[in-house]
Amino acid sequence: MPKSKNQDTAPYAYEGLDRTLHEKARLGIVTSLVSHPNGLAFADLKKLCDLTDGNLSRHIQVLQDAGIVLVNKGYEGKRPHTSIKLSAQGKKQFLKYLDVLEEIVKDAGDALKSAETGRQPKPG
Amino acid sequence: MPKSKNQDTAPYAYEGLDRTLHEKARLGIVTSLVSHPNGLAFADLKKLCDLTDGNLSRHIQVLQDAGIVLVNKGYEGKRPHTSIKLSAQGKKQFLKYLDVLEEIVKDAGDALKSAETGRQPKPG
Repeated sequence: MPKSKNQDTAPYAYEGLDRTLHEKARLGIVTSLVSHPNGLAFADLKKLCDLTDGNLSRHIQVLQDAGIVLVNKGYEGKRPHTSIKLSAQGKKQFLKYLDVLEEIVKDAGDALKSAETGRQPKPG
Repeated sequence: MPKSKNQDTAPYAYEGLDRTLHEKARLGIVTSLVSHPNGLAFADLKKLCDLTDGNLSRHIQVLQDAGIVLVNKGYEGKRPHTSIKLSAQGKKQFLKYLDVLEEIVKDAGDALKSAETGRQPKPG
């Protein structure tokens, strides 16, 4: 588990919790894309994440600006076809984010257990 | 694992991901409080979460308005002393939130594994 630089003094600051990836809708988008390494059509992503066109567009823009996804605007026959794919950097960044998420689930689980037994988990 | 109502059609919508608890700073605050069932002084919470006075106050207000934390403004000798505690409802709400967080970690883990083996995880 990677330690954030101030984990000893501020164990609940969760510095590694990337705000771009942590936003609820974007978290859904990126988790979908991780499951579809060849990319997903805009329409499919919209359905999987239950987002409107506008919302999905906005979040994809944020993810594209951050270098997390790659957007390919092409044609399928005569119809415009946009497909979205996780970038290699995006995958790396998401893996780091997931480590922090796992840490939170573990911290909270430890805390709940120690609250029952009366022992202290993390320092503080 | 609790299923959200549209999990079959929109498996990555993560409806149960409570926005009040999902916000990064508040997630740290609530995880700290779960570890300290008797409550924490404002100053200690500030240190544990590496937040400024203003930020911590603002987030505590949001959590208090949502019924997640209880705030006790009293005195320790002559000095004002604010202590913050997770409410019973807050604990219940946080447990539900953690279930969704665990689901995300699991979905992403499954996806990464299946991306290596070429199999599909969730429907879609």
